Amino acid sequence: MSALGKKKLSDIEIAQNTVMEKITETASRVGIREDELELYGAYKAKLSESLLSRLKKKKDGKLILVTSINPTPAGEGKSTVTAGLGQALNRIGKSAVIAMREPSLGPVMGLKGGAAGGGYSQVLPMEEINLHFTGDLHAITAANNALSAFIDNHIHQGNELGLDPGRIVWKRALDINDRSLRNVVTGLGGPANGHTREDQFSITAASEIMAILCLAEDMADLKKRLSAITVGYTYEKKPVTVEELGYQGSLALLLKDAMKPNLVQTIEHTPALVHGGPFANIAHGCNSLAATKAALKLGDYTVTEAGFGADLGAEKFLNIKCTTGGLVPSAVVIVATIRALKMHGGAGLDDLGKPDASALLSGCSNLQKHIETIRAFGLPYAVAINRFSSDSEEEIQVLKEWCAENSHPCALAEVWEKGGEGGEELARLTAELAEKPSAFTPLYKPEDPVKKKIETIAAAVYGAAGTIFTSKALKQIKEIEANGWGELPVCMAKTQYSLSDDPARRGRPEDFTITIRELKPSTGAGFIVALTGEVMTMPGLPKKPAALNMDIDEAGRAKGLF
Amino acid sequence: MSALGKKKLSDIEIAQNTVMEKITETASRVGIREDELELYGAYKAKLSESLLSRLKKKKDGKLILVTSINPTPAGEGKSTVTAGLGQALNRIGKSAVIAMREPSLGPVMGLKGGAAGGGYSQVLPMEEINLHFTGDLHAITAANNALSAFIDNHIHQGNELGLDPGRIVWKRALDINDRSLRNVVTGLGGPANGHTREDQFSITAASEIMAILCLAEDMADLKKRLSAITVGYTYEKKPVTVEELGYQGSLALLLKDAMKPNLVQTIEHTPALVHGGPFANIAHGCNSLAATKAALKLGDYTVTEAGFGADLGAEKFLNIKCTTGGLVPSAVVIVATIRALKMHGGAGLDDLGKPDASALLSGCSNLQKHIETIRAFGLPYAVAINRFSSDSEEEIQVLKEWCAENSHPCALAEVWEKGGEGGEELARLTAELAEKPSAFTPLYKPEDPVKKKIETIAAAVYGAAGTIFTSKALKQIKEIEANGWGELPVCMAKTQYSLSDDPARRGRPEDFTITIRELKPSTGAGFIVALTGEVMTMPGLPKKPAALNMDIDEAGRAKGLF
Repeated sequence: MSALGKKKLSDIEIAQNTVMEKITETASRVGIREDELELYGAYKAKLSESLLSRLKKKKDGKLILVTSINPTPAGEGKSTVTAGLGQALNRIGKSAVIAMREPSLGPVMGLKGGAAGGGYSQVLPMEEINLHFTGDLHAITAANNALSAFIDNHIHQGNELGLDPGRIVWKRALDINDRSLRNVVTGLGGPANGHTREDQFSITAASEIMAILCLAEDMADLKKRLSAITVGYTYEKKPVTVEELGYQGSLALLLKDAMKPNLVQTIEHTPALVHGGPFANIAHGCNSLAATKAALKLGDYTVTEAGFGADLGAEKFLNIKCTTGGLVPSAVVIVATIRALKMHGGAGLDDLGKPDASALLSGCSNLQKHIETIRAFGLPYAVAINRFSSDSEEEIQVLKEWCAENSHPCALAEVWEKGGEGGEELARLTAELAEKPSAFTPLYKPEDPVKKKIETIAAAVYGAAGTIFTSKALKQIKEIEANGWGELPVCMAKTQYSLSDDPARRGRPEDFTITIRELKPSTGAGFIVALTGEVMTMPGLPKKPAALNMDIDEAGRAKGLF
Repeated sequence: MSALGKKKLSDIEIAQNTVMEKITETASRVGIREDELELYGAYKAKLSESLLSRLKKKKDGKLILVTSINPTPAGEGKSTVTAGLGQALNRIGKSAVIAMREPSLGPVMGLKGGAAGGGYSQVLPMEEINLHFTGDLHAITAANNALSAFIDNHIHQGNELGLDPGRIVWKRALDINDRSLRNVVTGLGGPANGHTREDQFSITAASEIMAILCLAEDMADLKKRLSAITVGYTYEKKPVTVEELGYQGSLALLLKDAMKPNLVQTIEHTPALVHGGPFANIAHGCNSLAATKAALKLGDYTVTEAGFGADLGAEKFLNIKCTTGGLVPSAVVIVATIRALKMHGGAGLDDLGKPDASALLSGCSNLQKHIETIRAFGLPYAVAINRFSSDSEEEIQVLKEWCAENSHPCALAEVWEKGGEGGEELARLTAELAEKPSAFTPLYKPEDPVKKKIETIAAAVYGAAGTIFTSKALKQIKEIEANGWGELPVCMAKTQYSLSDDPARRGRPEDFTITIRELKPSTGAGFIVALTGEVMTMPGLPKKPAALNMDIDEAGRAKGLF
């Protein structure tokens, strides 16, 4: 999200004041011919299959991950730094392409109003990216709910596979914030209207199909993963897959276009592949593998991001996405802001305007832990100080000195206010770090037992003193290993606000344990979700939703997105 | 749907064997510049706002409506004749543009497998039109469900407007066939998860937002109609509108692109505007007014269709769509098939292969009634005999003679098998009929009382001996008139299979009455729905859904659509 600074223009005003170039021009600068694009208007395009197969022969560029400290209400601006760093790399003469997640409509209408970077480091056209974009999320919603209808129809029409209606684990989905859909009863109204059962709606970003789309290599892999989705269990507790129902072909067909990465541009015309947006707790929280792989072929540098802080997003990017796709990152940028560090050091949201070097230094403990995590993966890193207009020179100096004392490479990023120009120092630093051959090593091996994988993450990434498994979780691990899913990576569902599983504990908590309450196999996506507490997969709307301020004028100009 | 003939190729094979031209070429033939299109790939485009406003100055061409006898399981092929007639008019040297509804995904995955004409009279690219197309239905689904979330959130957050949760009339929607969503309970799980209430999901085509989009003149009119939606009633039974909730701007913003007509081509490259697809019972069943108006500006002839038989589709096209949009049709084509007429004459579905002149002549009574209806509107008409490969020459001769004896202009349409070439006779006949100045007159006036409007339709269009109103219906009519909605047109929800309200009565039933059980004001769309029985607004899936045969191969080629 945007910095809370003194700028006169809002994000949408900056976006609407920008003269975009035709997307065919942006594409041509990275060697894409017009006939290799599927245009969606003049400023959005999907990469065609012919382009994707031509690119396969090209050499990969370097991969740079942007992650951050644990998020706080003060804002971190990871997407803004990602867009800004891409722009800055191009300004210093490198060829850089950005790979980012696409926003979810629900939060846009609810709280956020928009999510495509901020200030002078945005991806455009922001109105369209924030609304329906090229329809990917709608296609995923359609496939998700088609599968629900197929499951209920299977039971209604005789239930040949013996699915236990009480053990359907496949949920319905909508790209919306709607608390009333969290818990529903479907199939009321007598036998002609289906069988009555409890169900839940998740937001589309939390659909396993979103995670599948983001981890599939190609159409064949997509179908394989769709086939492997566990929709529920029989009365004998045997898992039932989509393949047994026979719908993998139709679901893949529904995702035919959604599988293709979307090309847009930043304010400075840097190419950006904005594609896929899975949740970062019950899923892995990164844009599609297809987009990242295409970006690596198109630019010498690919700048990408992962959801939430490094404990959730970067860990999954590295342990799940990189291992699944064979990606080898070259460097990591860890975004921190003075304001957020101060909150990690104990300052309240209302006190962030006051200089407070002591809170700032104390909050650096959070940053320090994430740095140690990135080091544990064998990767070089740089701290990006994402400057907010309200930050004082003194505080920036304090943070810079802390970095210097601890030998942490660091650069000020003024990309919200100045675009790429404000990120040149960061770009030079990052490019330099990425020069060395990567020593990237995932934290665990596929053959490690599920329990050990979780313990490894808790110890190495969260700094937990121990991991407690509930008896339910232990039983589920046994079932998971008995079903042959033990070699899948683990996808941790933990609060994003703390390194621990207690959202109130900011900074760098110590002497805490992590409790694993429940496990959920996502056999299509290819990971085992480990839940440390309740995870909300359907957000609610606030008292005054952002939608109340939205409008469109006679000229078709959007208002109220920000 | 396609004729059940002896052709070797299926609809999708014919479609995939066709070399499409770039949509920019199709567009240029009707004077549209490339920069006036918003491309969605090479073969689909939306008409830009700048084009639509440039067109306003142009003269309208002639409007031809394609309707049919009451549908039977034997198939009529109205969309096929519509596409074929458009192609044929172009072949005989006229400039014709087609305006059609866009298919709904639910039935495509369920029973239909596809709905974009058939044989050599299809609109292309059929796979994409049948799947997500340009995302219009998804945008409508999103707006529909956003409104549901806003309503429930309003109640959850204090219910300032005093909405009675038991009297919310706004339903949720999905573009799916899913009987389990017909009756649901939402908001379970305690007070943090909303208030518990009953709700229903309709298929998106039945959403009032679909009807609104199809009747709105422009963005200002769209917002006005969205504002006027009645979402429910207060505890004092006062209607509550979207405007009172304050969400008309955000809903309009969600529909920004969906409002723009979609341009595609037929197999013979005739331009076709495929846009909007409301139900033909609880809504008016025609493509968008925006598409029809654009088509009238682009071609000398616009060929369009309306849902189901003339008793439902044409009646609403003429009384609702034409009066709302100020359209003046020039001629009507009534599609009949030998097979369907025989069913109206008493033949069974399994006996249609046998010649049966007596059933055929008896079934002509159904056709005769629809002809009388079109005459009542003051319009010239032609009967199109949509030839199926299995039809015998003798039977065609019998039907032609019946037409001649009754002085009904008539032409054989072999458009499924031969494309435009097979529709030249029909094209010449239709063009000739459209020459005379139109004497079009709607059947009732806005100021007629609601009861009288319904009685007029029942008598003049269905041939009913009388109309019975239940006490509930009479009470609702009073409320409707008290709320100031009495001048809206009436939208009849009646079975499509019979002129009466009993689906079993084929042919031309006599001495029957129509019973009006309930009325539902669609104050946004701008009509009062009069229900003659239960209307299913959420279809179910059959035992073997069409989706089971669908697939996509490595080259991205769709399979199993037909």
